[in-house]
Amino acid sequence: MTDGLEILPVRGIGEIVAGDELAEVITAAAPWLADGDVLVVTSKIVSKAEGRLVEVPVGGPERDRARAAALESETARVVARRGPTTIVQTHHGFVMAAAGIDASNVDKSHLVLLPADPDESARRLRDDLVKRGLDVGVIISDTMGRAWRNGLTDVALGAAGIEPIRDYRGETDPYGNELEITQMAVIDELAAAGELVKGKVDQTPVAVVRGYPRSGIRDAADASVLLRDAASDMFSLGTTEARADGLRRAALLPDGPEAALPGLPVDPDAVDRAAAAVADYLSRATTLAPAEVIPGSGATAALHLGTLDKTPVGFMRLGADAHRLRAALAAESIVTLSLPHEDGVRLELSAS
Amino acid sequence: MTDGLEILPVRGIGEIVAGDELAEVITAAAPWLADGDVLVVTSKIVSKAEGRLVEVPVGGPERDRARAAALESETARVVARRGPTTIVQTHHGFVMAAAGIDASNVDKSHLVLLPADPDESARRLRDDLVKRGLDVGVIISDTMGRAWRNGLTDVALGAAGIEPIRDYRGETDPYGNELEITQMAVIDELAAAGELVKGKVDQTPVAVVRGYPRSGIRDAADASVLLRDAASDMFSLGTTEARADGLRRAALLPDGPEAALPGLPVDPDAVDRAAAAVADYLSRATTLAPAEVIPGSGATAALHLGTLDKTPVGFMRLGADAHRLRAALAAESIVTLSLPHEDGVRLELSAS
Repeated sequence: MTDGLEILPVRGIGEIVAGDELAEVITAAAPWLADGDVLVVTSKIVSKAEGRLVEVPVGGPERDRARAAALESETARVVARRGPTTIVQTHHGFVMAAAGIDASNVDKSHLVLLPADPDESARRLRDDLVKRGLDVGVIISDTMGRAWRNGLTDVALGAAGIEPIRDYRGETDPYGNELEITQMAVIDELAAAGELVKGKVDQTPVAVVRGYPRSGIRDAADASVLLRDAASDMFSLGTTEARADGLRRAALLPDGPEAALPGLPVDPDAVDRAAAAVADYLSRATTLAPAEVIPGSGATAALHLGTLDKTPVGFMRLGADAHRLRAALAAESIVTLSLPHEDGVRLELSAS
Repeated sequence: MTDGLEILPVRGIGEIVAGDELAEVITAAAPWLADGDVLVVTSKIVSKAEGRLVEVPVGGPERDRARAAALESETARVVARRGPTTIVQTHHGFVMAAAGIDASNVDKSHLVLLPADPDESARRLRDDLVKRGLDVGVIISDTMGRAWRNGLTDVALGAAGIEPIRDYRGETDPYGNELEITQMAVIDELAAAGELVKGKVDQTPVAVVRGYPRSGIRDAADASVLLRDAASDMFSLGTTEARADGLRRAALLPDGPEAALPGLPVDPDAVDRAAAAVADYLSRATTLAPAEVIPGSGATAALHLGTLDKTPVGFMRLGADAHRLRAALAAESIVTLSLPHEDGVRLELSAS
């Protein structure tokens, strides 16, 4: 694959202010840059050069309010909250604590936002370097937390002139097995490698990876291919938030005959699991029995709940019991219609 | 921080079988290894050397069944499922698709399990190398997916002789700000850097990182410090699974006066949010009113639901409506007692 890589820090970058041309600053600090190198540039200096700063009070509740306002404006949706931590999806699509807004390595009267379009920032920097005769890849990196593992790593927010993914699809190993692991996020690995020689306190915001084979860089995709949209993400919400969403769905289960059923066959085991789950909670007066399916209703199974306690309290308990069962069925991906009548409640069922 | 790193592939490792001594194999292939190097060793060759293989049929439903059995035995808990993908937490504590069980780079009649104790494997390999006069760090790496981002990266399953985390706590940047990003998972970044020179198809399972400053390696922690336990993980379950759990909780809301309330003050805004959420779904006959708190009951607020429809169907609807409201209140972290009586349902409330 390669004979080896060098990961080299670029020293002497100094303070970056709005309007600075990064290509000039970086080539001055690293006159040894060469064709084929991959630059890993900390997003903070890109943000500073692009003026992506907001002025904030240096302390007090005004600072907290200004910070909260900046977070809100950078947020597309809240993913999870716990204590002081808010994890959001930004308008770019990154899932990050505090939308990547940072108060370190900047004077106390400013916060640094992420670059508005890190892929565009990477392209612009690469173009500026190409104009200076340097054909290099550019990665804009930032530090992110992750699910399941402690500690942070650097990943790629933007990229230009380098393939973001090493794709093994269709390749076979020496045993003739088709590879199961197909897509390596190499720009994230390059960003992580770059972080190892950059410092958070000693102003080394740029690293150079030398020796990485860049292929097809003319029409490479950019870092946005690594963004997973919420719909295809199995972890689009925090556990607490998703659980609360489930409770809210239970509160809002559609009622009445106007709600249509999809008419998909119901798994009898799933019905049994749901009924078993709530059995202990059903009031003793409640009776549960299978019932006929009304032809043409869209239901593929039905349950009938009745009560031995024909008092107002007995019927209230029956109504609550039926709703418990509907929630338990919903947890098994079974949708229901609730049809109360004077002898009890008929639940019509369909897979969703 | 450093003058730069080299990431070097170790060629010519060849096939590893149970009982092979990795220290011998690696030093034979890389006689140029030197004190201070960090070895990044693909977990698969560690597993093979340790005989962590299971024999499976080469095809058919028997193979699928054997694979499912292997997955079950490696699984501590299921985190998320979607289609053919099962993400689990292993007995080690890693959250990985298919528990890290892999059928690539092995003959078709075997599956490769993760090493039983990757930190112990790393320590053993490091000790064997120390005996040969080489003072190096060892990382056992594997490829993992992650939430929110497409593509896979290599991370550290085990480590010895290297600090797993670079801890910035208490350090300040040049502006005098205390650093907000405090703990970098450097062994994961080193594993990622190593992957860039290793191949998945050309049998280069070991990389060497040269030039990384290892400090305090004598009593370094191991890779297990990067494991986040489910209780402190904001993403301990898939969104679908957590949502189903919320529905199940709605089905199983504790009933009757025997369930104790914590007696914590309820946020009136949260009650309003819950009531507003279900208002559209309350049957038109249902009425909702605040009520007195029973002294000493543990409740800090109460609601009364009544109905204008004094028929069996009216009371069943009231019972279901009360349960809807209880679920919506639970979504706001408010626990309830449900006390039906002949005029309606009294809900007693407490924060949880």
